[in-house]
Amino acid sequence: MKISVYIGISLDGFIAREDGDIDWLMAADTSSGAEDLGYEAFSDSVDCMIMGRNSFEKVRSFPEWPYEGKRLIVLSRTLKAVPAELDDNVALYAGPISELVKQLEKEGCQRLYIDGGKTIQSFLNEGLITDLNITRVPVLLGEGLSLFGKTKQDIQLKHIATTTFENGFVQSTYDVVNEV
Amino acid sequence: MKISVYIGISLDGFIAREDGDIDWLMAADTSSGAEDLGYEAFSDSVDCMIMGRNSFEKVRSFPEWPYEGKRLIVLSRTLKAVPAELDDNVALYAGPISELVKQLEKEGCQRLYIDGGKTIQSFLNEGLITDLNITRVPVLLGEGLSLFGKTKQDIQLKHIATTTFENGFVQSTYDVVNEV
Repeated sequence: MKISVYIGISLDGFIAREDGDIDWLMAADTSSGAEDLGYEAFSDSVDCMIMGRNSFEKVRSFPEWPYEGKRLIVLSRTLKAVPAELDDNVALYAGPISELVKQLEKEGCQRLYIDGGKTIQSFLNEGLITDLNITRVPVLLGEGLSLFGKTKQDIQLKHIATTTFENGFVQSTYDVVNEV
Repeated sequence: MKISVYIGISLDGFIAREDGDIDWLMAADTSSGAEDLGYEAFSDSVDCMIMGRNSFEKVRSFPEWPYEGKRLIVLSRTLKAVPAELDDNVALYAGPISELVKQLEKEGCQRLYIDGGKTIQSFLNEGLITDLNITRVPVLLGEGLSLFGKTKQDIQLKHIATTTFENGFVQSTYDVVNEV
């Protein structure tokens, strides 16, 4: 089972400003072949998304729910219920992520999509990420929410491929090298 | 006059561990065509290097002085003198960097090479960097000395080119877009 990250970041490594704003990402020129960035193909391969409460609330604030029909698990110890209109596809989980991963693998999931800085960092630190797809936007923000955080040790990666887009986006994919 | 950054960083944005160690960079596989990474061509175009005291002392600790015959200006308010054996090519500077840049431009310099995290951050924040060449090493360190730091505002970049190497290094060049 693949456990994947697919995310856009500033050149200095931020996924959003301190308040969660992604205006700089939305403002980027996507007029020249970079509209999709391979997202649809990636998304089609995903059985289940996993994100934290902060990301969930950010996505909830969008005018439209972008993950229609997609299974989503929200990691939260404080949320007690999922909004009724999302009830069919969204579930809450408050236990250890390694158990969740085992359960989803048992259910036959082929690919999990891990989203949100803190959630990605937790999965990385437990050796639970298999691959990362990172698109760098050509801007320095100076501060914000980091994609990466402290790690228990060095995490070795294997570069798979890099694609550049006319608008200056640079998308690289990496596999995590899990030591044996 | 170009004012350039040419640097290798971990995927999570560090130029060195907290103590300045670059073992992870030295340990990276450079056996497959990535020995040079365009450094010689870049270095040949440089009239003058500029770095802070920390970087200078790090370079001084190497078994051999790597910048033989290259003019170097060390930014420091505490150093009082340059070691005698480096006296011909190394000078100290304690004034404002914008004045230094003006002086070097007046002298006819074509390209300055700015090195070291803090020094690069100072130059970026004063709008004094024209281009960056960043090579990403496929490893997450989790903590260390950052290439980038806080900025006064967003800094827009223009992606020029990206080259990938068989060892997984991904090298991207950017011009800084200076607002008018």
